[in-house]
Amino acid sequence: MPEIIYGRWAVMETMRAGRRQLQQLLLAEGVEEKGIITEIISGAQTRSVPLKRVPRRMLDDLAHSQDHHGVVLRAGEYPYCELDTLLALAQSRQEKPLLLILDLLQNPQNVGSLLRVADSVGVHGVVLQDRRGVGVTAAVTNASSGAVEHLNVVQVTNLVNAMRTLKEQGIWMAGLDLAPTAVAIDRADLNIPLGLVLGSEGEGMRRLVRDTCDMLVTLPMRGHVESLNVATVGAVALYSAWQARSWQGWKHPQ
Amino acid sequence: MPEIIYGRWAVMETMRAGRRQLQQLLLAEGVEEKGIITEIISGAQTRSVPLKRVPRRMLDDLAHSQDHHGVVLRAGEYPYCELDTLLALAQSRQEKPLLLILDLLQNPQNVGSLLRVADSVGVHGVVLQDRRGVGVTAAVTNASSGAVEHLNVVQVTNLVNAMRTLKEQGIWMAGLDLAPTAVAIDRADLNIPLGLVLGSEGEGMRRLVRDTCDMLVTLPMRGHVESLNVATVGAVALYSAWQARSWQGWKHPQ
Repeated sequence: MPEIIYGRWAVMETMRAGRRQLQQLLLAEGVEEKGIITEIISGAQTRSVPLKRVPRRMLDDLAHSQDHHGVVLRAGEYPYCELDTLLALAQSRQEKPLLLILDLLQNPQNVGSLLRVADSVGVHGVVLQDRRGVGVTAAVTNASSGAVEHLNVVQVTNLVNAMRTLKEQGIWMAGLDLAPTAVAIDRADLNIPLGLVLGSEGEGMRRLVRDTCDMLVTLPMRGHVESLNVATVGAVALYSAWQARSWQGWKHPQ
Repeated sequence: MPEIIYGRWAVMETMRAGRRQLQQLLLAEGVEEKGIITEIISGAQTRSVPLKRVPRRMLDDLAHSQDHHGVVLRAGEYPYCELDTLLALAQSRQEKPLLLILDLLQNPQNVGSLLRVADSVGVHGVVLQDRRGVGVTAAVTNASSGAVEHLNVVQVTNLVNAMRTLKEQGIWMAGLDLAPTAVAIDRADLNIPLGLVLGSEGEGMRRLVRDTCDMLVTLPMRGHVESLNVATVGAVALYSAWQARSWQGWKHPQ
């Protein structure tokens, strides 16, 4: 089944990552060939991807969204990988595994935003529960600015089993939670082989997922509004974990 | 000019904060009286706010959005405050000032998301450049889940002048920036009277705003995608600043 990728950065990063089959680039009539569009067109030419100009309305229909900004790519399926790949990447980088584990998140915007941060801090992979939760859809790829195209993502049918398998490999599971027993994020040692577990919007982690965690950590709050968006919580937690690793692998511009 | 507040949490927090004149609560026909809706209705009754049931389409029109989830409030103007109020709040709490300063952000979703985090870490106030940038619109209030209703927000005509005024009061300006000279966020001392300055999406801070900063700090990145959303950067920076203050004022559930 060919898939639809939409949005300038999503399309650009899909071509750059080169992990999917690239079938056809569609540009809305009237989109000017400048800036990132020039790069996309030249990227398509280099990779022998056929280019077609089409009415903008056709892109709205294909993308089921108007967030395509005039650019759509027909491509092969998203290349999900296996748990072993995540651990192998950590090993080849000689780093302690850092994984993001998402339990039934529903909002593609949140998932995309989390994947963008996951890429930014250099996680070795992401584990998603399939069905009921969001997978790597076009909306997720778009919301991640294409970052997901560079990430190792595993989709599993049973998240608890996947967590157990990872625990057997020496990875500790830290669940983000609001419980009184949860410790503040900076009090936990995050410089260990780690899976950061986030629950769904509103509901949090399912009970069994929560019970499978080795520790519960929390983001302090002192405001009037008693919750934070899961994408915000995840971003702060991922940065805390990377900071605990002294920004290992940081490509500092200096 | 009456304003339109839309969305369940935005409406609830506007009533709770009680800083605006409350004129009329509008509920879409068919919205069931349960959960937060029950709270909103009883909040309106307590405060003598008239309630009216209207067709959902009317709310779409009033809100210029479909994100109202059946709840709209007609209310007085947003109560902007002055710079002095921010400093007075810090003083009354016996805390070093922590301010969020936004230079011409364009996206209401980003501004709302930042304000929600600002509330969560207990900033003493937020300074926005008026015109050209986003003010506290209905979309911002909604995106902040109503958090902005509890915050001190100052809208200024000249952000650089406001920054200078704050500097004269002993507040240091730390700009979030990608420059090679910027130091990693955890290397800067953030446990000082501090204004965290964020530039606009894509463009970053304007030159004069950047030059007015006392220091430039950066969020390390090691991913393929070379930027992060400004709301993510701001969330991590605000949490870093609060962590540097040892979670002062944290209402721990224990």
